[in-house]
Amino acid sequence: MEKKLKLALIGGQGHVGYVLRVLKDLPELDVCAVSSGCDAPADALAQNCVNLGYNPEIYADYIKMLDTEKPDIVSVCGPFELHAKMCCDCLERNISVFCEKPIALTLEDLDKIRAAYDKCDKSKVKIISMVGFRGESPFRTAYDAVEKGLIGKVKMINTRKSYKLGTRPAYYHKRETYGGTIPWVGSHALDWILWFGKSDFKTLYAVHDTADNGGNGDLEMTALVSCVLENNVMASASIEFLRPAAAPTHGDDQVRVAGTCGVVEVMHGKVTLITATECKELELLPERGIFYDFVRHILYGEPCVVDAEETFELTRACLAARDFADKNQL
Amino acid sequence: MEKKLKLALIGGQGHVGYVLRVLKDLPELDVCAVSSGCDAPADALAQNCVNLGYNPEIYADYIKMLDTEKPDIVSVCGPFELHAKMCCDCLERNISVFCEKPIALTLEDLDKIRAAYDKCDKSKVKIISMVGFRGESPFRTAYDAVEKGLIGKVKMINTRKSYKLGTRPAYYHKRETYGGTIPWVGSHALDWILWFGKSDFKTLYAVHDTADNGGNGDLEMTALVSCVLENNVMASASIEFLRPAAAPTHGDDQVRVAGTCGVVEVMHGKVTLITATECKELELLPERGIFYDFVRHILYGEPCVVDAEETFELTRACLAARDFADKNQL
Repeated sequence: MEKKLKLALIGGQGHVGYVLRVLKDLPELDVCAVSSGCDAPADALAQNCVNLGYNPEIYADYIKMLDTEKPDIVSVCGPFELHAKMCCDCLERNISVFCEKPIALTLEDLDKIRAAYDKCDKSKVKIISMVGFRGESPFRTAYDAVEKGLIGKVKMINTRKSYKLGTRPAYYHKRETYGGTIPWVGSHALDWILWFGKSDFKTLYAVHDTADNGGNGDLEMTALVSCVLENNVMASASIEFLRPAAAPTHGDDQVRVAGTCGVVEVMHGKVTLITATECKELELLPERGIFYDFVRHILYGEPCVVDAEETFELTRACLAARDFADKNQL
Repeated sequence: MEKKLKLALIGGQGHVGYVLRVLKDLPELDVCAVSSGCDAPADALAQNCVNLGYNPEIYADYIKMLDTEKPDIVSVCGPFELHAKMCCDCLERNISVFCEKPIALTLEDLDKIRAAYDKCDKSKVKIISMVGFRGESPFRTAYDAVEKGLIGKVKMINTRKSYKLGTRPAYYHKRETYGGTIPWVGSHALDWILWFGKSDFKTLYAVHDTADNGGNGDLEMTALVSCVLENNVMASASIEFLRPAAAPTHGDDQVRVAGTCGVVEVMHGKVTLITATECKELELLPERGIFYDFVRHILYGEPCVVDAEETFELTRACLAARDFADKNQL
């Protein structure tokens, strides 16, 4: 085997599981080091890696970790408000980044990441965010149907993100540390729109509301986003924390893509296709780990399900929609 | 039995079936006359009435019909672009009106109806539009659940109207005679929002698009409406003619109402309720004809599922959303 790529982990919030779950399939990687990226201990994260057969160094200071270990790839799941700085710190050192979405909480911070990225050798340094739904079975299956032309030209995309509120850590209560419900929850919905719509966002209309949030501070309970893409595909996103406790799953994640000759719909983990001649449930494609794709892309140039430009466009759209909604306070 | 109320029918387009279907349950009514309201013959409409045991006069001129027969109630299902004038002609003669929606194709015409209505004795003269979904089993059942407080305070309403395009008569091809997809198809969705949301519209954002309409002229294939109601309920409407031919029904009519402690959803004719403690399908309430309600309201003061103010508000919202979308041409 060739020289192993060095992977370092910053932070264990959010979807670091996307990384941990596929490590067994990536013998090319060594987890060299971990850091919480903040004052919190990284012991639990390190233990997860030890359990998987690695022996990472633990660093209190992630900058020191980057400069000492010189990793090839870093997973960023730190405090949300530090994502942008962490991305910049990695890119400035020519390290590829797999970052929890949203990668920035303000448009200004997003610009800084873009500037750091533009100075990199883009053939070697990559950055994507954790839009792991693109690899999940039902969504891959629906996307495959659209790619095969089974619904014709895409015209309308309807998405739903409904979560149980549960009990949220304190960093969800402040805009500065949470970022807002449109970027945090809605980013999945907007990513589906970007992915299935195959075009950048042209116009965005958004509203959000913190009312009835059960004492969760700034957290918006409900949001709606309406989009028109550059190719005139229309799309809607319904985003809220109203999923009742007795619902069978934490999230009600739905995508419906209607085209000129068919409709494909992901609901409750199943995929339905209706065309001029048939109405049927599709057999699911196997799951594909987004981090697995990302590493194979870096190593072997295999196609990855998402790229840097889409990552920037998604983040821009989420933050622009949130900022628009702020100006339309209910 | 008391003196029969006289019912006259103008036009057989649209949902005149709401009237014909419940006549057998309304022995208090006599169908005294019919008119097409335009140059077309009214023979088929008259024959329908004869088949139901009535013996209506046929008038080429509906004004002459109103002045000669002096009906108590008129059903208006004429050419769409004449609805507003027909409503005014009836109201000016103190005749109650059951009119196909939308009751006007322009905001100016809606103002004329409002002015005519304001001159009436409102205790006797009524006007509503044919929002028959309010009486259909699944929608009544969902509404009943909300009324019982099973989902708490309503926060978010998502609606879908997806129709098969099929072959459309020529009057669908021109804005002047069709009115637009938001008023024609979307009026159902906006009515659900008004009904379940129990509040007038505060803000409306809308887009629509005529592309890929298969040679149907001005007909918009797709539309999206986002609303915030005066009570801050958010709502979305996805409206299109993209339902594929092999779909099991002509229309995919869906409403989802999410509240502070539950979600109720109408889909495929079934109603699902999820709360903190249960997730179940609700037993359906029986259908209730909207015209039956309307006549009993006029005769006996029984509650009707919709009133004049809601009819005006719905029409205003549909036309305002359409006009807004016109200004945001894709």
